[in-house]
Amino acid sequence: MMAVQDSMDVLSGKWKISIISSICYYSRRRFSDVLNDIPGISNKMLSKELKELEINKLIKRTVLETQPITVQYELTDHGKTLQTIIRNLTAWGIEHRKKITNE
Amino acid sequence: MMAVQDSMDVLSGKWKISIISSICYYSRRRFSDVLNDIPGISNKMLSKELKELEINKLIKRTVLETQPITVQYELTDHGKTLQTIIRNLTAWGIEHRKKITNE
Repeated sequence: MMAVQDSMDVLSGKWKISIISSICYYSRRRFSDVLNDIPGISNKMLSKELKELEINKLIKRTVLETQPITVQYELTDHGKTLQTIIRNLTAWGIEHRKKITNE
Repeated sequence: MMAVQDSMDVLSGKWKISIISSICYYSRRRFSDVLNDIPGISNKMLSKELKELEINKLIKRTVLETQPITVQYELTDHGKTLQTIIRNLTAWGIEHRKKITNE
């Protein structure tokens, strides 16, 4: 039971999956791009969520020597293992919505 | 993104996955048994969670003509499709915990 809860803790909350999907879709993504990808998320919230994903070793942060400095994120190998989970959750969610709305 | 959110909404919260796993493990489970299976859950909370799972067509409720009356729950076919998701989340959670605690 605890293991499932671990997964849920990592994935739960309004933004995590959208952030992971945005970084994953482009394989590398700058902070400002992720911010634009996700309507409604604040700068502060995105920073907090990215920090948590980093602590959970799901993403890697790289500071680019640009002027001004830019920060880039990419999925770690461990983070990439989430893709199957997210794909399964997506597929199940689509089925579930059909089930609930059709009958 | 919405589809993933649908799945997360159905699975989120402290108790849902434990309740589904308890019913799923025994294939049919009475209210009082589920209550005993899950340490810390209150009678009121279990009723609420079971109601939500029923609305989401994941479990089926049967009233047994016993004295006193007992209510039994089982997974619907749709509910059974959750088993793979829960298995994947469990496996991923175990890997994740190893990853975080080992390094």
